Amino acid sequence: MEIPVKINHIAIAVTDLEGSLFFWKDALGLEVEKTEEVGAEKAIVSFLNIGSCKIELVQSTDPESGLGKYLEKKGPGIHHICVEVENIEMMVKQLKDKGIQLINEIPREKKDGRRYVFIHPESTQGVLVELYQ
Amino acid sequence: MEIPVKINHIAIAVTDLEGSLFFWKDALGLEVEKTEEVGAEKAIVSFLNIGSCKIELVQSTDPESGLGKYLEKKGPGIHHICVEVENIEMMVKQLKDKGIQLINEIPREKKDGRRYVFIHPESTQGVLVELYQ
Repeated sequence: MEIPVKINHIAIAVTDLEGSLFFWKDALGLEVEKTEEVGAEKAIVSFLNIGSCKIELVQSTDPESGLGKYLEKKGPGIHHICVEVENIEMMVKQLKDKGIQLINEIPREKKDGRRYVFIHPESTQGVLVELYQ
Repeated sequence: MEIPVKINHIAIAVTDLEGSLFFWKDALGLEVEKTEEVGAEKAIVSFLNIGSCKIELVQSTDPESGLGKYLEKKGPGIHHICVEVENIEMMVKQLKDKGIQLINEIPREKKDGRRYVFIHPESTQGVLVELYQ
């Protein structure tokens, strides 16, 4: 059985990235690894290190994007948990064998080569879970 | 400046603990450390290990409790992030000096001696954050 390695990151949807960084960086003391615009996701993302995990603060740059609509509907808050696995194809198979629904079964690839799928919240009682390899 | 050590746990509020364990344990492969009734919180909690962190699945045993009302209003989902610190008094002071509101400024103590405070979501753009020492 595949076993997840760790929590890779917790993604938090924000409407005021500067205000959110004031809390996580200036007050709580986390180190910002980088802040970058992610064109494909129409978002600006700040990555903060905490132990072996990251907090990702994600602000939409387009109200018509998926994230923009999410923020419009639900407001800021924790958006998803990303779980790191060693073999994403094996984990997808393991989940499908148990009847778990995925949003995308074929891993998508980020610019840095990381591959990811999202598990459907229908199968997790409302928690959006990303798998990352 | 105090710097958080790591994410201690992510707490997920659930209405169907068995169904939620099916996903996190049987499908995703996480190890359950223990499941116990926490009388003070009127909840049953399952603790699952993931890397150096935990996922805590929390089901209310009383619809009139804080968690019971939360579930009634918002439904199941991620409830809070718990950040582990080395010196909770120093971190509370650091946060207050920056104008961050806390739900309780004096740490409460769990049965196992762990001490904790909650930061008010007003100061974090809607994310409930627990500090743990």
